[in-house]
Amino acid sequence: MIRFALFGCGRIGRVHADSIDVHPRAELAWVYDPIESAASEIANRYGTTIAPAVDVAIDDPSVDAVVIASATPTHVDLLTRAVRAGKAVLCEKPIDLNLARVDRCWKEIAALNPTVMIGFNRRFDPSFRQVRDQVAAGDIGRLEQLLIVSRDPAPASREYLAASGGLFRDMTIHDFDLARFFLGEIVDVYATGANVVADFIAELGDIDSAVVVMRGRDGELCHITNSRRSVFGYDQRLEAFGATGMLSVGNQHPTSVRLSNATQTEAAPEYLNFFLDRYTPAYRAELDHLITAMEQGEQPSPGFSDGRQALALADAALESLHAGRTVRLESQ
Amino acid sequence: MIRFALFGCGRIGRVHADSIDVHPRAELAWVYDPIESAASEIANRYGTTIAPAVDVAIDDPSVDAVVIASATPTHVDLLTRAVRAGKAVLCEKPIDLNLARVDRCWKEIAALNPTVMIGFNRRFDPSFRQVRDQVAAGDIGRLEQLLIVSRDPAPASREYLAASGGLFRDMTIHDFDLARFFLGEIVDVYATGANVVADFIAELGDIDSAVVVMRGRDGELCHITNSRRSVFGYDQRLEAFGATGMLSVGNQHPTSVRLSNATQTEAAPEYLNFFLDRYTPAYRAELDHLITAMEQGEQPSPGFSDGRQALALADAALESLHAGRTVRLESQ
Amino acid sequence: MIRFALFGCGRIGRVHADSIDVHPRAELAWVYDPIESAASEIANRYGTTIAPAVDVAIDDPSVDAVVIASATPTHVDLLTRAVRAGKAVLCEKPIDLNLARVDRCWKEIAALNPTVMIGFNRRFDPSFRQVRDQVAAGDIGRLEQLLIVSRDPAPASREYLAASGGLFRDMTIHDFDLARFFLGEIVDVYATGANVVADFIAELGDIDSAVVVMRGRDGELCHITNSRRSVFGYDQRLEAFGATGMLSVGNQHPTSVRLSNATQTEAAPEYLNFFLDRYTPAYRAELDHLITAMEQGEQPSPGFSDGRQALALADAALESLHAGRTVRLESQ
Amino acid sequence: MIRFALFGCGRIGRVHADSIDVHPRAELAWVYDPIESAASEIANRYGTTIAPAVDVAIDDPSVDAVVIASATPTHVDLLTRAVRAGKAVLCEKPIDLNLARVDRCWKEIAALNPTVMIGFNRRFDPSFRQVRDQVAAGDIGRLEQLLIVSRDPAPASREYLAASGGLFRDMTIHDFDLARFFLGEIVDVYATGANVVADFIAELGDIDSAVVVMRGRDGELCHITNSRRSVFGYDQRLEAFGATGMLSVGNQHPTSVRLSNATQTEAAPEYLNFFLDRYTPAYRAELDHLITAMEQGEQPSPGFSDGRQALALADAALESLHAGRTVRLESQ
Repeated sequence: MIRFALFGCGRIGRVHADSIDVHPRAELAWVYDPIESAASEIANRYGTTIAPAVDVAIDDPSVDAVVIASATPTHVDLLTRAVRAGKAVLCEKPIDLNLARVDRCWKEIAALNPTVMIGFNRRFDPSFRQVRDQVAAGDIGRLEQLLIVSRDPAPASREYLAASGGLFRDMTIHDFDLARFFLGEIVDVYATGANVVADFIAELGDIDSAVVVMRGRDGELCHITNSRRSVFGYDQRLEAFGATGMLSVGNQHPTSVRLSNATQTEAAPEYLNFFLDRYTPAYRAELDHLITAMEQGEQPSPGFSDGRQALALADAALESLHAGRTVRLESQ
Repeated sequence: MIRFALFGCGRIGRVHADSIDVHPRAELAWVYDPIESAASEIANRYGTTIAPAVDVAIDDPSVDAVVIASATPTHVDLLTRAVRAGKAVLCEKPIDLNLARVDRCWKEIAALNPTVMIGFNRRFDPSFRQVRDQVAAGDIGRLEQLLIVSRDPAPASREYLAASGGLFRDMTIHDFDLARFFLGEIVDVYATGANVVADFIAELGDIDSAVVVMRGRDGELCHITNSRRSVFGYDQRLEAFGATGMLSVGNQHPTSVRLSNATQTEAAPEYLNFFLDRYTPAYRAELDHLITAMEQGEQPSPGFSDGRQALALADAALESLHAGRTVRLESQ
Repeated sequence: MIRFALFGCGRIGRVHADSIDVHPRAELAWVYDPIESAASEIANRYGTTIAPAVDVAIDDPSVDAVVIASATPTHVDLLTRAVRAGKAVLCEKPIDLNLARVDRCWKEIAALNPTVMIGFNRRFDPSFRQVRDQVAAGDIGRLEQLLIVSRDPAPASREYLAASGGLFRDMTIHDFDLARFFLGEIVDVYATGANVVADFIAELGDIDSAVVVMRGRDGELCHITNSRRSVFGYDQRLEAFGATGMLSVGNQHPTSVRLSNATQTEAAPEYLNFFLDRYTPAYRAELDHLITAMEQGEQPSPGFSDGRQALALADAALESLHAGRTVRLESQ
Repeated sequence: MIRFALFGCGRIGRVHADSIDVHPRAELAWVYDPIESAASEIANRYGTTIAPAVDVAIDDPSVDAVVIASATPTHVDLLTRAVRAGKAVLCEKPIDLNLARVDRCWKEIAALNPTVMIGFNRRFDPSFRQVRDQVAAGDIGRLEQLLIVSRDPAPASREYLAASGGLFRDMTIHDFDLARFFLGEIVDVYATGANVVADFIAELGDIDSAVVVMRGRDGELCHITNSRRSVFGYDQRLEAFGATGMLSVGNQHPTSVRLSNATQTEAAPEYLNFFLDRYTPAYRAELDHLITAMEQGEQPSPGFSDGRQALALADAALESLHAGRTVRLESQ
């Protein structure tokens, strides 16, 4: 039985608490959140204990692993302390908004050979994973083009977005990691964007729509399309085009019902609305991967360096957006 | 070049005129219709001549073949005369509403070894034909179940239906033939029906909805679902279920456009509206089959006996509807 | 918290144990199975206790409800005893293979105003339920035709089938109930069948394929297509056709991946394989319905009479199969 | 009746000959091709006359319009001569590979107020057109993102590609025009490419795969994905994403057949193989548009300037490919 402490009891914290709860070999030992009502809600729901301070949980020798689902600025500190205490860590993305700080963090912990997993849940989505496995198995020959469409149903609040680090570091970072999941090393990046969704996003100096183009080391072309708003629901699709075929992942519906009437045919209901619905199986598989890796003494994946590289891609995209040119990535 | 005379210039007559017009080896020599305006319209459109009487066309030695698209009660007479004059015949379904009359017709012409094709156009629909070919090729193993859904967009007029011979002889007859196209010999038939679409159909003593169940000689189960009205357009589908797979034919759209918005996803436009749209390629392939058979001195298919058997099935279905029991077919 | 005793620890028993385990307001107090290893497995997995005898569980005053997932011949006895002990009951289908015995059972317990729910899980499938709700809301106008396709991936064992009561009572019974879920009262039934899947089924005097046609009180036509074997997986579909539209339920895939290559396009993976996969959400919703009904002092649905009527339909179908004619149902 | 002269009897010339042949108000008066066998084939097939020289056709006062389907280097000269002779012109894309030459051509003919239509057939594809009409009607609100996937089944020959002007001027030019069809004015372009399909293309100094990103004047983001080879057939898709919905155009199949078996489900056959199949209706609608415009004394669209702008976009993309940066377009 792997015993977890959970830091951060917001929306994503609840997802992890739920994954721990239903996992047969996991136990939620402690929860902590600076907002006590948030901590209480999860503690009550899953019958666990609120830690009076993070150290109490980190120093508890019966705790094996820590899930960091707190505000981004706290990630590096919590991650460092947990690693020093010998705990395995599942840290939500991004590790930090500042790449230099991420690199300093790694310098501090690298010698400890830490078990750190970054919460890029989409790698564990059954559909994306199946495509990745089939590409690896050669089902479409050499991979040549990768298309990712990733649109949120609606923008987050002004407060959230103001602290988010911007579209690339907050939202596209998942797509950067997904691209790396398929392509491995990315050679260069180009990005362009627009403000068409909501004025307050422009006022924050951020974009709400983007297209990113990347090239992989073996000549693969990859592009990502983002929007902060999709009225028909969470739009999460992918196409892997290769020399001998194409594998695509479509959006997913809560039911398989279709309606035909006098004005249309075969209309489906709305898509699964957001990440809590679409990626529930992914979050559970992600946790299971960490637990299994710990049990078998292996490193989980994606690891710290994957979190680092996705952030480096976000920074490069931002540089490209401002400079209007291709930005080459340093060799990884 | 095969020269045709066309008898009957209504809706289905125009379809055949058009098929003849676009066929590179066919020519429309004469058209005839008791309603002169109907004949004029086709004659003008395709630059051909109105026959003053059917005999003029039938007796024209330069005419090779006759298309009978006139009112059902005229079929047997025209067919017989055309055969006696040595012409090939493409006769619209049904040959007649009276099975005894059909059998007498055959007795009169059989010795002439006539070239008679019955207009069961669905056998030439590219989708149905592909399924039939793949079934024949063993792609789904032994055929075990056949499901046919066949619904018209809207009921024909009271006048048309009053003379139609009823749902089974007028509409289901296409499905009976399609079933025979897949199963060959049918052993028994059961039919039930309902009046839910339009009161005037009940007043005519006819049904507007039906389910027919048939068994093939090799134990295949087949069912047909009919309705005289489908608000979302012409509903023409088929499933062939076998020991090692299933082949299905879905409805067809005029474009491949799909719409997703706040209330639905992936909604397609209306289906191809009716037989003129859905079966245009089938009608053309049907005519091409006849022409090719004539050129090669072979019998076209479906032939007279196929027309006879589909009518026999319609009669058996009607008997079953009234008797509430399975009706066995005589060995064919 | 509702405390359950579970009788029967086979495949379907495990499904219910799992539903109880994940339900936040349910607790598995006892399990019982004459095969002790089956009981142990569930007891160990869910941390509960094996009852030394059914009476121990039934007589436990802390037990609120009983799930009967044991062999069919034991249902009536267990149900009767549980009702007499004041327990709510969730009984798997069929109540019994003998309609007279079912009716006697009801006579014995009716005066106790029992809380009995029959395990027709498909009523709780999100897709079927959505269609039913939309039909009830008038989204397709008056319901005119209902098509149910229901095929198992592969036949059960000879032993299982020998005791199953035959295709109609064992397998079609789910479809009979689904038809009643949509149509309410059924007026008459016709059935035909075939033996094409497996010789041993014929040797048992049973059929392995069937088509059933039914009529509802308001003229609705309904047909069911069954097979004991579908190589492409569990085939569970439905179409509700009405005056102003059609709602359909398609099969469901484990992922939304599609493959296009040199020989085909848009190929999906296999369907969810069997009821454990396809109907997991349905089983959970079914249990939740019972629990909520108990909490609110209401009768759950489907109830005892629904179990009785589905069996009556199965008997009528069998009679029709042998007699080759429509069988009228007694008014319900 | 509009009388046409056709210059160029290759693959695309045959498409136009066929469109003229089936159009009720068009007539093919002359055909010309330097390769006489090519000219003969079309002349024989459609019963028309081979012009001994282009002037014979251009100077024929009974000729109303000229279709230029000859080799690209001949376009400007033929177009200029035809315009001077007072003929309407349908010129295949590109007008020329050299933008300066295109501009000089326009200077020479502009004063004649010529009727010139450029053969961007995709504007007449029923699916693309329907999406464009629905976008214009506001069905998806303000257009924000446009995704175009355009992949040929297989590379053309080395000879063809060597003279083609490169991927952007030869193949992407259709997508540039399609983007303009939706967006109107394009503000800037970025392009990147790869060589993964065929070595001989790299040897020609050309790319075989590309991603192009463009921005419209109103902030629309557009990207185009190209490949010279798609094993599953002609890949021609589009998504228009807007503030209140999304319209997409999928690939098209020759039949609506789907196959499910032990290894896959719902597999469709190959797509319509190439432009001759996919765009037959588009070519016919294109010709009909020209004829109708001529009859009504209106200018057809897309016109000369549309041909010019698509070429300017191709040049800008090429510049971007080499420079690795966004290239701004001059105001149009």
